[in-house]
Amino acid sequence: MRAFSANVERLIEKFESLPGIGHKSAQRLAFYILGLSDAEAEDFAAAIVEAKHGVRQCSICCNLSDTELCPICASDTRDPRTICVVSDPRDVAAIERTHEYAGRYHVLHGVISPINHIGPDELRIKELIRRVGTEDIDEIIMATDPDTEGEATAMYIARLLRPFHIKITRLAYGIPVGGHLEYSDEVTLLRALDGRREY
Amino acid sequence: MRAFSANVERLIEKFESLPGIGHKSAQRLAFYILGLSDAEAEDFAAAIVEAKHGVRQCSICCNLSDTELCPICASDTRDPRTICVVSDPRDVAAIERTHEYAGRYHVLHGVISPINHIGPDELRIKELIRRVGTEDIDEIIMATDPDTEGEATAMYIARLLRPFHIKITRLAYGIPVGGHLEYSDEVTLLRALDGRREY
Repeated sequence: MRAFSANVERLIEKFESLPGIGHKSAQRLAFYILGLSDAEAEDFAAAIVEAKHGVRQCSICCNLSDTELCPICASDTRDPRTICVVSDPRDVAAIERTHEYAGRYHVLHGVISPINHIGPDELRIKELIRRVGTEDIDEIIMATDPDTEGEATAMYIARLLRPFHIKITRLAYGIPVGGHLEYSDEVTLLRALDGRREY
Repeated sequence: MRAFSANVERLIEKFESLPGIGHKSAQRLAFYILGLSDAEAEDFAAAIVEAKHGVRQCSICCNLSDTELCPICASDTRDPRTICVVSDPRDVAAIERTHEYAGRYHVLHGVISPINHIGPDELRIKELIRRVGTEDIDEIIMATDPDTEGEATAMYIARLLRPFHIKITRLAYGIPVGGHLEYSDEVTLLRALDGRREY
């Protein structure tokens, strides 16, 4: 028998439809929401609708934004001559957390993946080529994920950019900081060896 | 620098405020919402508001419901002479998943916890006493969690119910099905020994 009324079950189902949320987590989240004040629950609902309605892509870097330019492209403290190419807006957030990168980004919104029927035209690659053709760029840092698809996407884009004769770099591979050699796979270790640097 | 616009950051923060959701999960959930269609996102928001607005407690068992009676108390296939006392609506759902229990419930909405300043008056204990006084009850099954607070709450209620001279039982303790003796703590093993049954 349904343990709860239809509205409560519907809220649980909604949470369960989110990625990585199983049935028990969904229940926990739904009950947390039910325990909020009316105002807080409405505020949560409004945050969803407003984020969704306002969102579009930055006209320069294609990052998610609710203004014509994202905060980074709108800033005059960022170096417009360096572009870091990432596959996902979350990667922008990850690199921003280092507080070290001062250039701009370009968000591809995915990687080339024949299995998932995602070709180059589904990604923001033409937008990147257009930027490189019109902006004054010194360096493009390829920062897609270090897996097969991320690698292939980076290679594909690097090849497209070759005619522009600008510096194209790739994030370093190696053993993660705080990691253990013992648990590193052979390919990572090989890359770490290849990329060794002198003291 | 903020990687995203204010509305997107706000949505991430909202998800991060949920129990058990860290910053990275919150980002993942927020981007999932942003990837939905407008209609789907609005539907999610509406589910929150509608579940929250409609929700109240069943006038018999205090389970969450958006009708006067919850589906279980409203059903005439459930035995009204057996009450299973649980601390949380989620426990109702857990027991319903066994598809074996045919009685009704009583939801306390918490456990007695002096550390968190939750005394008996904060729980739906008087409502339970009133039910036992007015309904025709054969058995009360105490099904609060098998931890210190759940145990103390069950003992407290059992003592209050003693004057009614009805059968009061407690869920069996023991080793979990599929568990390993080796990993069971001493207290659980002791309870499993104490509660051993003849073939």
